[in-house]
Amino acid sequence: MKNEVTSCVDACLNCYKLCLDCAHECIKMADEHMLDCVQNCLDCAELCSLCARFSATDSPYAKRLCEMCADVCNACAAECEKHNHAHCQACAEACRTCAAECMAMA
Amino acid sequence: MKNEVTSCVDACLNCYKLCLDCAHECIKMADEHMLDCVQNCLDCAELCSLCARFSATDSPYAKRLCEMCADVCNACAAECEKHNHAHCQACAEACRTCAAECMAMA
Amino acid sequence: MKNEVTSCVDACLNCYKLCLDCAHECIKMADEHMLDCVQNCLDCAELCSLCARFSATDSPYAKRLCEMCADVCNACAAECEKHNHAHCQACAEACRTCAAECMAMA
Amino acid sequence: MKNEVTSCVDACLNCYKLCLDCAHECIKMADEHMLDCVQNCLDCAELCSLCARFSATDSPYAKRLCEMCADVCNACAAECEKHNHAHCQACAEACRTCAAECMAMA
Repeated sequence: MKNEVTSCVDACLNCYKLCLDCAHECIKMADEHMLDCVQNCLDCAELCSLCARFSATDSPYAKRLCEMCADVCNACAAECEKHNHAHCQACAEACRTCAAECMAMA
Repeated sequence: MKNEVTSCVDACLNCYKLCLDCAHECIKMADEHMLDCVQNCLDCAELCSLCARFSATDSPYAKRLCEMCADVCNACAAECEKHNHAHCQACAEACRTCAAECMAMA
Repeated sequence: MKNEVTSCVDACLNCYKLCLDCAHECIKMADEHMLDCVQNCLDCAELCSLCARFSATDSPYAKRLCEMCADVCNACAAECEKHNHAHCQACAEACRTCAAECMAMA
Repeated sequence: MKNEVTSCVDACLNCYKLCLDCAHECIKMADEHMLDCVQNCLDCAELCSLCARFSATDSPYAKRLCEMCADVCNACAAECEKHNHAHCQACAEACRTCAAECMAMA
């Protein structure tokens, strides 16, 4: 893998990890005010995982998925940034980093 | 694929679909009494999806994963059967069917 | 789930199954003429699986992913239709059906 | 997440990345002597991804999946170690590290 691909894959996998953690912690709150955060994080986790896969395997669809992944990461970050929980803040930061890496690939 | 493999894969994919639906509906309730149902359904969905993949691609690990999948399906069914919601009941039935197919493969 | 959503999810999961089978059989041929078929099927399988998930859980990104999934399904079908193997023909048919369902959702 | 969980999740995600890369490079060789490497890497990638998810979301099935993941990682490493390609060697190393982390969790 080229360095810039590895960098994007790593950002996607880190974002996958922190989105899963944030979704899990927010689900446990059973608080309807956190539902948008849960759905955003679950969707973002899946896209990051697939984006890492397509990038790592040099898929002809990697760029198109990176573009979509960047949009979803930014939307997830915007939602997570509204909440003061440590897991939301950590997730938001990972999402912003991943969005930037994905935009560089797209 | 042999017929019995196709039958197991189909049961896994149906269970994946109904576990995702049940988890999604239960998350939206934001009710702490449904949290065990959410976690069971999310875990069961993932295992069913992977079990379908390993079975469809004749993985040497398919039997071992089928055995684990059957256990998780039965545990998920036991939890879903406690709840009267239509999505929980539909999920429980899919889990029992999937558990039986996976046990036949294991 | 609404009927049209269930119909799309089922088409995606059927396509996932047949793409995995086709990829697996083509990999075993170890024939460089089948490599495009392998990569198309692996990519298509992943997108179908995620498209089923986003549709089943009413994701706000379901429509956009359905549109991408339809494009990838049609490309995969076009490649599989070049090959006379039973698994390629079965995969091509599932891809065309899935593409139509996804376009109806997008 | 506790530190030891993060450490296991990171090892799983790194192994996922290198197994995907190794599988992709080996598929492109279209060499029947690499088929065991391809299947091992594809299976191992999936298990690592799911193991990272179950560990990150504190699933009650995390330990059982970690145990299975460790076994599959060791088998994948044993196969990859037979081949002198840089991607096989990098994958083997990631598999051994992941197996050790997963055993510590199981």
